[in-house]
Amino acid sequence: MPGIETILSPALFHLYEEELEQKNVVVIDILRATTTICVAFANGAREILPVAKPEDAAAMQQLGWIAAAERHGETVEGFDLGNSPQDYTEARVSGQKIALTTTNGTRALQMSSAAKHVWVGSFLNIKALCDQLREDNSDLLLFCAGWKDKFNLEDTVFAGAVAEMLADKFTVLDDATLAAMDLYKKAQPDLNTYLQKASHVNRFKSLHIETDLDVCLKIATLNVLPEFKNGTIQNRQHA
Amino acid sequence: MPGIETILSPALFHLYEEELEQKNVVVIDILRATTTICVAFANGAREILPVAKPEDAAAMQQLGWIAAAERHGETVEGFDLGNSPQDYTEARVSGQKIALTTTNGTRALQMSSAAKHVWVGSFLNIKALCDQLREDNSDLLLFCAGWKDKFNLEDTVFAGAVAEMLADKFTVLDDATLAAMDLYKKAQPDLNTYLQKASHVNRFKSLHIETDLDVCLKIATLNVLPEFKNGTIQNRQHA
Repeated sequence: MPGIETILSPALFHLYEEELEQKNVVVIDILRATTTICVAFANGAREILPVAKPEDAAAMQQLGWIAAAERHGETVEGFDLGNSPQDYTEARVSGQKIALTTTNGTRALQMSSAAKHVWVGSFLNIKALCDQLREDNSDLLLFCAGWKDKFNLEDTVFAGAVAEMLADKFTVLDDATLAAMDLYKKAQPDLNTYLQKASHVNRFKSLHIETDLDVCLKIATLNVLPEFKNGTIQNRQHA
Repeated sequence: MPGIETILSPALFHLYEEELEQKNVVVIDILRATTTICVAFANGAREILPVAKPEDAAAMQQLGWIAAAERHGETVEGFDLGNSPQDYTEARVSGQKIALTTTNGTRALQMSSAAKHVWVGSFLNIKALCDQLREDNSDLLLFCAGWKDKFNLEDTVFAGAVAEMLADKFTVLDDATLAAMDLYKKAQPDLNTYLQKASHVNRFKSLHIETDLDVCLKIATLNVLPEFKNGTIQNRQHA
């Protein structure tokens, strides 16, 4: 059986790079980059280009792309969109190309680029994602983007949810995945309440964007499968 | 109230170095360095010098110290002792000075040296440790030594146990501590069974040293308080 390991922070990624080209990576930034990417594709976005800096997104704006930039949880001034999934409506993004930079998520995608496949994971597309991972049947790294290289609960709980869904066909190889699965089981009866206590969520409250949490915890509502490949993200789900 | 944060791996330590000189650090390497250090002091060891390499321990042997060296879970050939707490009997260590090098624990001690105090934590001395931390009333970093920079369950569960014991007098500042507390609560009814599933413990089984786990999970049995200061470890508990 293929194995599952969980990377709890980008600062630990270097420990998992061996034979990366044979492994699938799921990049996880539940609040909010990877959730937002799923919503954008569900609402008809054509392509999402993750870029390192707000200036890079601004440059793409000149070429007709939507420029989206978030830093420290807030939309950067002068940009079309930030990182809130609620901004990525069909009216706003259908048929559009989007250049996106976020504090944690876009960097984690770039770091994973040598993998066999790099998938964008969120609670919203967890079923489509797990179906794909089962079918591919390769070793798997669940890569939590964290918050400025620190561990966070929401990404870890999601990693645990994926590991639980795949447990019959994959072998758990490390303590990080075991811990993530137990945290998911603890959180699962009421994810929203559980994650309310997380420090990242508490930071959200101070930014008056707590309603994003509800959006980010809708489970398996979107049949999208965003893949990061050749430097950009496209939806591989053809329902 | 002072704050608690948990460092899940030495590879994340750099994120917590700000104002380190005002914080207490508890170094945690349950299987087995910090447990073994507690047992050695309880059995009368005078001093334990953590050294980087087996050669350094061998050099101290020439000066009359006991030389202890572990790599990859096993005693290095030609050394007096390894890293198993069961080897540190009163007959062997009473009145002795010991030079010790281990895969994870000694390095974590060295990394912490700029802190206000660096305490050696294990389930065996958890009460003495928490009494001291309450009395000192400073910000606290629970530093899990991990396994070759990877997260491990036993160190994290112990961090959660300490955070639980201090919860009335300290503020939890990060998701890592919240997760550790939940994992401790999950594990607490039967620590041994819970940690049996951990990968580190599974590695132990392959080395036929699983009986160490029982020794390492005896809670609050030893009234010792080893402190790492000026490059060496001494017992600060004067019962």
